[in-house]
Amino acid sequence: MVGTLTPPYYAVIFTSVRTEGDNGYAEMADRLAELAMNQPGFLGADSARSGLGITVSYWKDMESIRRWKAQADHAAAQRTGQEMWYASYSLRIAKVEKEVHFPPAS
Amino acid sequence: MVGTLTPPYYAVIFTSVRTEGDNGYAEMADRLAELAMNQPGFLGADSARSGLGITVSYWKDMESIRRWKAQADHAAAQRTGQEMWYASYSLRIAKVEKEVHFPPAS
Repeated sequence: MVGTLTPPYYAVIFTSVRTEGDNGYAEMADRLAELAMNQPGFLGADSARSGLGITVSYWKDMESIRRWKAQADHAAAQRTGQEMWYASYSLRIAKVEKEVHFPPAS
Repeated sequence: MVGTLTPPYYAVIFTSVRTEGDNGYAEMADRLAELAMNQPGFLGADSARSGLGITVSYWKDMESIRRWKAQADHAAAQRTGQEMWYASYSLRIAKVEKEVHFPPAS
């Protein structure tokens, strides 16, 4: 779980419904997670799936998100995502203004 | 899955790790979801859990979120949440600036 960060920073909220079957998805997801971790401005990400999947990744600023969107391997995955892996998805870009943690950060 | 909304609006990103056992959690979650739906300014919510749980709720503005935080039954659930249901959680408030959908909204 992504711990304490210092607002303001950005969140990319990716909500998705998968198609049937793997079709190379798991391998791509692992590879993209590793790629994201090495992107400038990447602050962390949390994922959960139970029918609906939600991944929230956190970024230093909009410029980091733009660079990540344009990254070549990621752009290829975006195309394959629409063709094979996702029945539907929503992606939202939001500026985090405040955060609270329990137990409180020491 | 929450569909097309019109930015700017607000997201509350709630990430949590549960304690063992139900302890009345499922009943509270159902009740709170119903309460939230009837709050002024509530726009929708998505949830997923696989070990980590992520719930993202969407709100018209900060004032709607403040009212929801202060709502009496919700405030009681917040206390019990810290005592019984959650080993840890993070709550982030973010202003959604942009959204993209696939398939594109018609």
